[in-house]
Amino acid sequence: MKGPEADEGASASGAKTPRTARGRRTLRALLDAAADEFGEKGFHDAAIAKIAERAGTAIGSFYTYFDSKEAIFRALVQDMSRQVKESVVPRILSEPDRLSGERAGIEAFLSFVREHKALYTIIDQARFVAADAHHDHYQGIADGYRMSLAQAEAKGEIRSGDNEVRAWAIMGMNVFLGLRYGAWSSDGDPRDIAAAAIDLIANGLAQRRAESGGVA
Amino acid sequence: MKGPEADEGASASGAKTPRTARGRRTLRALLDAAADEFGEKGFHDAAIAKIAERAGTAIGSFYTYFDSKEAIFRALVQDMSRQVKESVVPRILSEPDRLSGERAGIEAFLSFVREHKALYTIIDQARFVAADAHHDHYQGIADGYRMSLAQAEAKGEIRSGDNEVRAWAIMGMNVFLGLRYGAWSSDGDPRDIAAAAIDLIANGLAQRRAESGGVA
Repeated sequence: MKGPEADEGASASGAKTPRTARGRRTLRALLDAAADEFGEKGFHDAAIAKIAERAGTAIGSFYTYFDSKEAIFRALVQDMSRQVKESVVPRILSEPDRLSGERAGIEAFLSFVREHKALYTIIDQARFVAADAHHDHYQGIADGYRMSLAQAEAKGEIRSGDNEVRAWAIMGMNVFLGLRYGAWSSDGDPRDIAAAAIDLIANGLAQRRAESGGVA
Repeated sequence: MKGPEADEGASASGAKTPRTARGRRTLRALLDAAADEFGEKGFHDAAIAKIAERAGTAIGSFYTYFDSKEAIFRALVQDMSRQVKESVVPRILSEPDRLSGERAGIEAFLSFVREHKALYTIIDQARFVAADAHHDHYQGIADGYRMSLAQAEAKGEIRSGDNEVRAWAIMGMNVFLGLRYGAWSSDGDPRDIAAAAIDLIANGLAQRRAESGGVA
């Protein structure tokens, strides 16, 4: 999809920008290897030599892109944030309204977590290894949510309310559904889990005296 | 509130049970000191000698109750789980129905987090230091939620739905509201935040064609 000079993905990850397609492949292999290494061993026990080995490159190649174990860890957190957004946001935007989009987004997120079991380990470690990256990861998602809720409110697609509280609440909901139904176990069809979650988000728990205008 | 022989709190924390009131005070002081030490320094950099010093006891007293740094960490996770429940559950039960209870519970939880800033650091570290304790902490809360939602559903207080999904969703919502409005900052009145959150949980985001039966 990108032209040959497009290095935005790499530079957005905080790594030095590769000049060649081969360099971009090496950087991608290093980040994927880092996800496996940090995911399995944790930051303290992970080793740069092992990351290079998993990536099938020399240690020298590692140092072409990263100064330290912390540097690749920070790049990995940004890379995973970006990967989550790229997997989830287009699915949200492909739906006709915010609530259908939310259901599609939850489903896409659960599928992403099942394919990327290291996500939770990496983000939770970031709290201790790179607190600012951890903060920015969640703040960035919450800001996006708040803006999209405000837009949906302006269009009359959702009721008005405190969109900052709603953004953090819905993000937390998704994170914990991903923990339970993605990171810890893969039981249940993501479509059914997303449908149950969106029933809660859209319609709430309260009984209605007359069913009217709820989203199924 | 407890009789002089009541050692349940201590034994429930996984520590050796003190036989005297003085012993119980020492154990309490050690757990509070551990919360400060682990909260500030993290598990790896925390030191048993510093925990004993913060608690105002000799290192020998530490080893009367705990075999290791990991042992007091595990006891602390259980102790904090219990403290959260003891702060929040009575507030939920004091309300006439599940939805009013949920609002009171969120408010109580936010106030608890503001008073116990170490909570998130400790529980998040548990994922790496004592994965089973981390799992048990969240699974225990989710199980309690699921049962109380099933009871409310049976009484007709809430609509029927998938209470396992709902339990994890609402827990995640509360955890992230606590992170945003308790651990990271103390802006906003817990009553207002809880009111906005309960509006989402009770009534959902969807527009209603006719307002009917929502919970304000």
